[in-house]
Parts: sequence; C-alpha cells; structure tokens
Amino acid sequence: MNSGALPSPANLTLRDTVTADDVTVVRQLVASTGFFSAGEVEVAVELVTERLHRGPESGYLFLFGDCDGHPVGYVCYGPIACTVGSFDLYWIVTRQDRRHAGIGTFLLYESERRMAATGGRAVYVETSSRPQYEPTRRFYERRGYRQAALLPDFYAPGDGKVIFAKNLLSRPASPAP
Amino acid sequence: MNSGALPSPANLTLRDTVTADDVTVVRQLVASTGFFSAGEVEVAVELVTERLHRGPESGYLFLFGDCDGHPVGYVCYGPIACTVGSFDLYWIVTRQDRRHAGIGTFLLYESERRMAATGGRAVYVETSSRPQYEPTRRFYERRGYRQAALLPDFYAPGDGKVIFAKNLLSRPASPAP
Repeated sequence: MNSGALPSPANLTLRDTVTADDVTVVRQLVASTGFFSAGEVEVAVELVTERLHRGPESGYLFLFGDCDGHPVGYVCYGPIACTVGSFDLYWIVTRQDRRHAGIGTFLLYESERRMAATGGRAVYVETSSRPQYEPTRRFYERRGYRQAALLPDFYAPGDGKVIFAKNLLSRPASPAP
Repeated sequence: MNSGALPSPANLTLRDTVTADDVTVVRQLVASTGFFSAGEVEVAVELVTERLHRGPESGYLFLFGDCDGHPVGYVCYGPIACTVGSFDLYWIVTRQDRRHAGIGTFLLYESERRMAATGGRAVYVETSSRPQYEPTRRFYERRGYRQAALLPDFYAPGDGKVIFAKNLLSRPASPAP
C-alpha cells in the first residue's frame, strides 16, 4: 500500500478526465491484451459511455496513464452505491506492449490513494478462478489483496468468481515529511 | 424450488411490462416497508428508470404483482453480464400491508422459473449481515438459498454483505402431467 507520492514510471502522466475519444482508447487498450472476450471488451467500453452520459455521478471514475501523449493503461473504479467507503475496482489494463514496466501497479496504487483520500475503507475486485487468471490473482495478492470469497461456476460451469478485498485503512505509517 | 405452475395468491396477477408509472409504484412499494434508507429507495427507483431508458437491454427485468389493479409487490432481477446463466435478484418487495400472504414467495419462485426458462443456472442475492436482516436471510434460506460468501464491513463498519446463491438446475422432478 502506498502512502503519499510514489515514483511514477518514466514519462507516465495521469489524467482523470474522460472525453469521447476514450471510448476508442478503452476499446483498444482492453483489446490489446488479447485476454478478454468481445463481450468483455464491450462491457469495459460501456462503463466509459455511462461515464460520458452521466458524469462522475455514474460512479465510474477513470485514471488514464499516458506516455508521450499515448494512452498505455487505465484503471476504472468507483464508490459502491449504498456503502460507506467501499469501492469497486472494475478494470485495470496495461497496453500489451507496455506490460511489466510498473504501469499497472502505479495506476492501482494511485487509484487506491484517491479512494482513501475520499473516505475509502476497502476496495474489492472480482476476477476469474480459471488457470488463465492465475497471474491476475497473483498481481492482486502481491499488492495487499486477499481472497474474500469464491463463487464456484459463477461466470460459467468451471469458471468461478474470486472476490479479492484490500483494506485501505491499514496503511503503513507515512514516511516523515 | 417450483417446477411449473404454482398456485398464485388470491387475485394476484403478474405483469412484466414496465411503464413510466412504475417509477412511482416502485418508490411507494419500497418506501412502504419502512425498511430501506432514502438512498436505497433511490437505487431501487434508478433500476426502473434505467429499464425505461434502455429496455430489456438494461439487464433489469421486472415482475409486478397486482391485486385488484393495485401493485402489492415486485421483483427485479436480471442476467449478470459476462456470465453464462447467472442471474442477480436485485430487489424483492411486498407492500407492507400485504406481507405474510405468500406474495413475495410467489414472485420469487416465478422469477426463478423465468430465469431457468431462459438458461438460468444459478441466482445470487445480496443482503446485509445486520440483525435487522435476519428475517430476510431466513426468507432466502427457507426457499433453497445457501450462504455463499460473507464480506465483513462491506456496507459499513459492522454491516457486512452476505451473498446467497441458489442452484436453478437442481430442481425436483416435475410432477407427472
């Protein structure tokens, strides 16, 4: 868990505004991974269009990472309705040719920092129990998430849903200023 | 689990169309219970407006129970995006002065029947772990739901989320015709 500023990957700039161009940006970023089905890509895109139509009231907050003016990753998260301080992490994607450079970790920690700064107590993320998602599950586990639930066969027969949770309050003491 | 027709409570007629009037219908039904917060009432209403704007594509299916032309309860459910045959039960409400007459049970079983008829394998419902919700949890447990997960402090400190699941495939053999 980061507390305060974290060194950013080289040349990465953050942007939390969302424009109509981001419909294409998100579609291309998600599709670049080769990991998600066409239906899943459309769900990711749907969250952008929801946000464009309804603004932050949609509950979908975005953080884009740009390198030299080109989007290389994004995270979509938001407060969960009817909860006090619980957030969902809906999507986190790094462009396929920019993986393993710390971009996803940076986007994750920065979104957690922003959640905590607006009263976030915990963040939840859902993923698949399939072997293909083992690296995804490791990604979260290594960043302070623990498995909170497993719903077998949720996505499809043999494809369960794993819910990970991270406590945003149990952060280490801040470094001296 | 019902299989096929179930005797309907006296004078109850079902309706799965949604009109603009149902914004008020849902608000009044949910508020009548005295059980939900103002914010929760608005979330219930939001699902109706979503449905009115986007049609069944919204993923929100409704089943209203009317007695003598007056709405006395409703259930809102729908297929979960990116799953094969998983459904969410979002809301089930009986008007306060018509409780304990089997209306909720009838609406629940009828919605389950419709889910199963369109490929539903399982239905999930989320509720609170607070003592106030003990009757709600018993309602589901007595109708074939089992606790699949508990996320402590999800809704608020001391207010966890319980996820119940019911398998729609393990129905008893249909009675002889």
